[in-house]
Amino acid sequence: MKKGNPYGTHRVINPKGVLPQPALKIDNTMEIYDNEILIDVQTLNVDSASFTQISDQAHGDVEEIKKIMKGIVAERGKHQNPVTGSGGMLIGTVKEIGPALEGKTDLKVGDKIATLVSLSLTPLVIEEIKDVRKEIDQVDIKGQAILFESGIYAKIPTDIPENLALSVLDVAGAPAQTAKLVKPGDTVLVLGGAGKSGILCLYEAKKRAGVAGKVICFAHKESSLQKVRDLGLADYYISGDASNAVEVYEKIMDVTNGELCDIVITCVSRENCEMGSILACKDNGTVYFFSMATSFTKAALGAEGVGKDVNMIIGNGYTKNHAEVSLQIIRECEPLRKLYSKLYAGM
Amino acid sequence: MKKGNPYGTHRVINPKGVLPQPALKIDNTMEIYDNEILIDVQTLNVDSASFTQISDQAHGDVEEIKKIMKGIVAERGKHQNPVTGSGGMLIGTVKEIGPALEGKTDLKVGDKIATLVSLSLTPLVIEEIKDVRKEIDQVDIKGQAILFESGIYAKIPTDIPENLALSVLDVAGAPAQTAKLVKPGDTVLVLGGAGKSGILCLYEAKKRAGVAGKVICFAHKESSLQKVRDLGLADYYISGDASNAVEVYEKIMDVTNGELCDIVITCVSRENCEMGSILACKDNGTVYFFSMATSFTKAALGAEGVGKDVNMIIGNGYTKNHAEVSLQIIRECEPLRKLYSKLYAGM
Repeated sequence: MKKGNPYGTHRVINPKGVLPQPALKIDNTMEIYDNEILIDVQTLNVDSASFTQISDQAHGDVEEIKKIMKGIVAERGKHQNPVTGSGGMLIGTVKEIGPALEGKTDLKVGDKIATLVSLSLTPLVIEEIKDVRKEIDQVDIKGQAILFESGIYAKIPTDIPENLALSVLDVAGAPAQTAKLVKPGDTVLVLGGAGKSGILCLYEAKKRAGVAGKVICFAHKESSLQKVRDLGLADYYISGDASNAVEVYEKIMDVTNGELCDIVITCVSRENCEMGSILACKDNGTVYFFSMATSFTKAALGAEGVGKDVNMIIGNGYTKNHAEVSLQIIRECEPLRKLYSKLYAGM
Repeated sequence: MKKGNPYGTHRVINPKGVLPQPALKIDNTMEIYDNEILIDVQTLNVDSASFTQISDQAHGDVEEIKKIMKGIVAERGKHQNPVTGSGGMLIGTVKEIGPALEGKTDLKVGDKIATLVSLSLTPLVIEEIKDVRKEIDQVDIKGQAILFESGIYAKIPTDIPENLALSVLDVAGAPAQTAKLVKPGDTVLVLGGAGKSGILCLYEAKKRAGVAGKVICFAHKESSLQKVRDLGLADYYISGDASNAVEVYEKIMDVTNGELCDIVITCVSRENCEMGSILACKDNGTVYFFSMATSFTKAALGAEGVGKDVNMIIGNGYTKNHAEVSLQIIRECEPLRKLYSKLYAGM
């Protein structure tokens, strides 16, 4: 059996020397190296931006969607959308574990897992596409995939439906980072607090900030805000345009009596929310950007431009135990579980 | 006298409601609001990317460069390059201070200062361009500018030549953030350690990490590396391609005996250095991205893709006392002052 690199560089075909994610083509032969895990795939949870693009290109036609998805994997050896660059995640069952992983992994053959690394770097073969669930970007297939030694995963819990678990795990980094950042007594703003990642961040922020803290939910639509208000997830609820920096600043000045926030968490999937986030934060506070629509230069030059000494963090989709932290929210809070199931798991 | 907003929103003409930096046109009337400072401008230090673009467009012709620069200010009311979006900074003398700033600022009329906020948001009038120093991106003018209440500045020191002070202040955020991040005993990697900001970061890292720490300088060219080696600014010197993640990883694994780095500071002004930075960092370590060529999504998805639990910081050009911290380096280290004067101040 051949020896593999922990990051999967041994599978890269073109261009040589890069990692599997930026690679244009990787080797998807389903014969494992000594440190790989072979997975029988059940469901692909395609990244939202990627699925929307594929669906648009197919004019919504399911057979055409299948054809495009198979074409991507045939060309690249992985399901990385060539337009958006993004992937998604998968659910499947462990079929084989490389001998070099013995004693290093808690997995055994037959375990059902979700991979938490992107499909944009995961060797994949699609034999057949069985079902396309357009409304929640999920696709059932017959096929196989490879998990590298550095690849992260979560065992699928038995007490949470699979669709719901997948949706929560998709954004697991955000609430787990929130848990690490927020301290008792903090004033915390969640921009986009009524969205898929925002709701989980609100819950975690409230739990960590405690009774002495203040959690502020900022959302675009009053109707979305109402859903969160009904659950009592925050202390203050504000509707407004997160890309209007002056509006955000004035509303947050008002609700915090001019003190601004210790922590600002930005979960809005639209452009130009950097300045509002920065202005809403106290000097020496922290702005945590979880949205992929964040511009590095707008944030860096923007903070300098207004002379704000704030700590700005690039949202890492991974942090230790992020799967457990996020699934725990669903276990703890029944009303949130119900809302989340309805909005994001098609249940 | 009219009352102004601390961030200068009262000067924005188009589009309404945004901050001065993203605005397309701001009011550059040189009559101050109650919280503004009027400056007699002596020199513009144009952002390097912006100056290169203007010079290319002018085919290097000085009269044509002057015409383009005047045109930008006439159209926008500020010197914000419409192609690169960037500005620069200026040196000048305080001419008038708004009455609302009394007791709030340590400046007095006649003080010579450098503004540390970008020219991309600073109201400016150019009456005449007197001299263009193409080799160091500096332009002497007759003209005036406005500093907003939130605008940061540094008094020009009397013991350091102005050109040298300007070059150091241009990158002041990087060494000042380094000073805040590095702890005694840390292993620190500076990618692009032989460049304008990298050299200052190296010095500050060595000072903070102390004898128990290790500072590693990584640079592209052996010839640049030699200049830093001659000064003894680091403990280890490595030449290589920072955009080749696998190469960076292997070389840093080697020099750290497989332990990797507590802090990675990325000062390389080229694309695709995110993954090398991330792979070179220990779990729970910190990657500080100072380069404007950093991609937010490449960093965020890249760290998740390899399951690295690292803290990734967006380099804020401003932090408290950053001007003092960076100028102090020049005062403390005579060999570094000589090298810097030669390379970046045309002396």
